[in-house]
Amino acid sequence: MYEGIVQDLIDEFGRLPGIGPKSAQRIAFHILQTPQFDVSHLAQLLVDVRERVRFCDICGNVSEQPRCAICRDPRRNQTLICVVEDAKDVAAIERTREFRGLYHVLGGAISPIAGIGPDDLRIAPLMQRLADGTVQEVILATNPNLEGEATATYLSRLLHTLEIRVTRLASGLPVGGDLEYADEVTLGRAFEGRRSV
Amino acid sequence: MYEGIVQDLIDEFGRLPGIGPKSAQRIAFHILQTPQFDVSHLAQLLVDVRERVRFCDICGNVSEQPRCAICRDPRRNQTLICVVEDAKDVAAIERTREFRGLYHVLGGAISPIAGIGPDDLRIAPLMQRLADGTVQEVILATNPNLEGEATATYLSRLLHTLEIRVTRLASGLPVGGDLEYADEVTLGRAFEGRRSV
Repeated sequence: MYEGIVQDLIDEFGRLPGIGPKSAQRIAFHILQTPQFDVSHLAQLLVDVRERVRFCDICGNVSEQPRCAICRDPRRNQTLICVVEDAKDVAAIERTREFRGLYHVLGGAISPIAGIGPDDLRIAPLMQRLADGTVQEVILATNPNLEGEATATYLSRLLHTLEIRVTRLASGLPVGGDLEYADEVTLGRAFEGRRSV
Repeated sequence: MYEGIVQDLIDEFGRLPGIGPKSAQRIAFHILQTPQFDVSHLAQLLVDVRERVRFCDICGNVSEQPRCAICRDPRRNQTLICVVEDAKDVAAIERTREFRGLYHVLGGAISPIAGIGPDDLRIAPLMQRLADGTVQEVILATNPNLEGEATATYLSRLLHTLEIRVTRLASGLPVGGDLEYADEVTLGRAFEGRRSV
């Protein structure tokens, strides 16, 4: 609908996740009206991020160095590993400031439908990290859905052969939520996991 | 939450219209997993669009040349000008393939609340285009909302001093819509504008 490169830019934006054709058009027009310096900055940042950012050799988190900031930090508890599906989950957990151990990013979850088996995940590197006996507890923090639960079950069986404590994040009512609106599975889990007060 | 430039990229994406922090993060991670060649292509396109794309000297539509493809096309009806608020509206009207005349982009609508008066819009260039007597009809295609109607009213008064036919796009029920769900103003307009069949 537009001349040459404007349409190309709209098409490119439309390929990004979560951006439909209308948003893509809106963003392209925003770019047209943004100072040239700012657009060059964004363009350079895109290239830099893609060139310089990689995944940590140890945990799989995003990093500008072979080892990420968390794996490099000696103050982190080296006896505790939290296993997550995705690097985005690391950021989510870091935001809570509750966890001071290390991470291990699997790069997905077991999903027979999507054709993802245990061999497609970073499970072998996890077993290597556990081999020297430093780690005392592995927290399984995969998503509380079908694939995440399947992955947690698979890992817990695998890890129980080692002398390591294996835990799973608690399921229950979300804080600030309404009991009335909780689904039955979540409410069931909340009963199951009830604690003395 | 992320190291250096990844967070910078998330922040930059978050500044684009219609992209919240979660989407910005999702897009940044998508970029990390996109082939380097494709990311460079997007970056170059951003720079190119900002450098090469401008607004048509005559109508204000987006263009890579001083005059846009529509203004350059001799097959377009030179006696008809459709006045729109935004260059995005040109694309929307072109998609209908109903209109074969020329356009004039005002660059907004009169809005006392936003402090936009007639002098902030491209009204003087419109009057210049109408001066030589070629144009026989001006179609006011500003949005059917408060600001768009105010702008259309202002322009129709201004243009009635010239010997030019001034028309306004019809208001009425959207095709495929449900009469039951139409708001009363739209339904009122549909009655007002009813036609013999």
